[in-house]
Amino acid sequence: MKVIDNIQRMVMFSKLAKKESKTIGLVPTMGYLHDGHLSLIKTARQHTDAVVVSIFVNPKQFSPGEDLEKYPRDLKRDEEMARLAGSDVLFYPSDADMYPDGYATYVDAEIFADTLCGRVRPGHFKGVATVVAKLFGIVRPDIAYFGQKDAQQSIIIKKMVEDLNMDIDIKVLPTVREKDGLAMSSRNIYLSEEERKEALCLYQALLKCESAVRSGERDAGKIVKMAKNIIKERPTARIDYIEAVNTKTLAPVDTVSCETLLALAVFIGKTRLIDNAIINP
Amino acid sequence: MKVIDNIQRMVMFSKLAKKESKTIGLVPTMGYLHDGHLSLIKTARQHTDAVVVSIFVNPKQFSPGEDLEKYPRDLKRDEEMARLAGSDVLFYPSDADMYPDGYATYVDAEIFADTLCGRVRPGHFKGVATVVAKLFGIVRPDIAYFGQKDAQQSIIIKKMVEDLNMDIDIKVLPTVREKDGLAMSSRNIYLSEEERKEALCLYQALLKCESAVRSGERDAGKIVKMAKNIIKERPTARIDYIEAVNTKTLAPVDTVSCETLLALAVFIGKTRLIDNAIINP
Repeated sequence: MKVIDNIQRMVMFSKLAKKESKTIGLVPTMGYLHDGHLSLIKTARQHTDAVVVSIFVNPKQFSPGEDLEKYPRDLKRDEEMARLAGSDVLFYPSDADMYPDGYATYVDAEIFADTLCGRVRPGHFKGVATVVAKLFGIVRPDIAYFGQKDAQQSIIIKKMVEDLNMDIDIKVLPTVREKDGLAMSSRNIYLSEEERKEALCLYQALLKCESAVRSGERDAGKIVKMAKNIIKERPTARIDYIEAVNTKTLAPVDTVSCETLLALAVFIGKTRLIDNAIINP
Repeated sequence: MKVIDNIQRMVMFSKLAKKESKTIGLVPTMGYLHDGHLSLIKTARQHTDAVVVSIFVNPKQFSPGEDLEKYPRDLKRDEEMARLAGSDVLFYPSDADMYPDGYATYVDAEIFADTLCGRVRPGHFKGVATVVAKLFGIVRPDIAYFGQKDAQQSIIIKKMVEDLNMDIDIKVLPTVREKDGLAMSSRNIYLSEEERKEALCLYQALLKCESAVRSGERDAGKIVKMAKNIIKERPTARIDYIEAVNTKTLAPVDTVSCETLLALAVFIGKTRLIDNAIINP
């Protein structure tokens, strides 16, 4: 596996791969890899000729006061994990290479970016869309892989690709969970032992809602209420948002009559966790 | 020359051209072609294997109350002109194909877009960058050609390409002028006979400023003042802006000490015209 730490060399690699008619799979990450990332890398390995894993803790998608500085980083560990999962390239650009002085251009999916996580993290998805557009420009993947855990991110990236006529196939793979159901996240490392147990309430709330829908409940308000009640039982949990929205438009739904995204963000102590389920009535 | 009126067929054409290792040259226009456009097409013809001229009167770059509805259109005439100039494809997508219901994604070069024309036409350059990003996605040109008359547009497109790591070469060709010096523009058709004469003041103002710089004048304020005085002599002329800015950053300059863009926008009657000169002291 090559480690490429500069944009120009990454572009060269991709141009050569294209010239050799290889398909390129991209797994964009912020590093501190976990089994969720590895499932993306392994799938890319199966379906594309050259697998590129990017690691870039993108400052543009953190708001002031968020955890940019303390976001976990461990390149050596990530290198080993990416290599074992079948990556051909670990692309690890610097901040100065990605956003040189005078950087000015942003991509924003506007109405999709201002709801759910975007409402509480203003500018977050503009940062995400911008960095992913850049990675797409640099790596020129045929297929890019994202995790369902970041549901709004996947929807926005798909929207960007469609709207800007990018020739890239976006694959969204199921959330990978710990044995007890907690969604894998690099941020889980922030949790104390006690919080780790409480964090399970996100998944439990989703299970409860899914079960209610299976039993015939269609009132989105009631479903959200059920999720809220489960989470409120945990003393360290503070709900950021819980919403039921249309998976295509991210518009809130009153009745679960078509494919619906039940998305939630919950602080466990100081750590903000997200999770979601797609509910098909 | 093929006329392609739909995105999917344009994408197919470009994919095939790429497969045949042809280079693609793109000349994005809003139609109603003039000699300025033709110089771009002829240059593209010399330097690329497949020349695509796009015609799309982009609604996203017009503000409410601007001339979107009355913008001149004549597809038959444009077809003939593009063909004679050496175009292989006239790409003529519909509004609904470019911006289907639910369209959400915009590209914005922010600080570059909010000055000069952007200050008086809010959202204009966001519309320009967005449509050009789309055209780049659809046509996948190796080289795209723009005219120096739309100086801010060219600078923003170059900035977008650089910032978003697009693999496209942007060529900016000199402004083509009528015999008396008026910059060619599709909007010149709006001018009455009387206004057509008065419109010459834009070019005259630029000549005067260039001559002053050649004679040693470096005070940007004084240079702008000279331009203003020439334009104010014309009864139908109303200055929208006249500014001297750095060609790289578009920041206003006090002293002409490096390459400087002298840009102006002037209403002649109801018609807003722009012109500019790059001044090298």
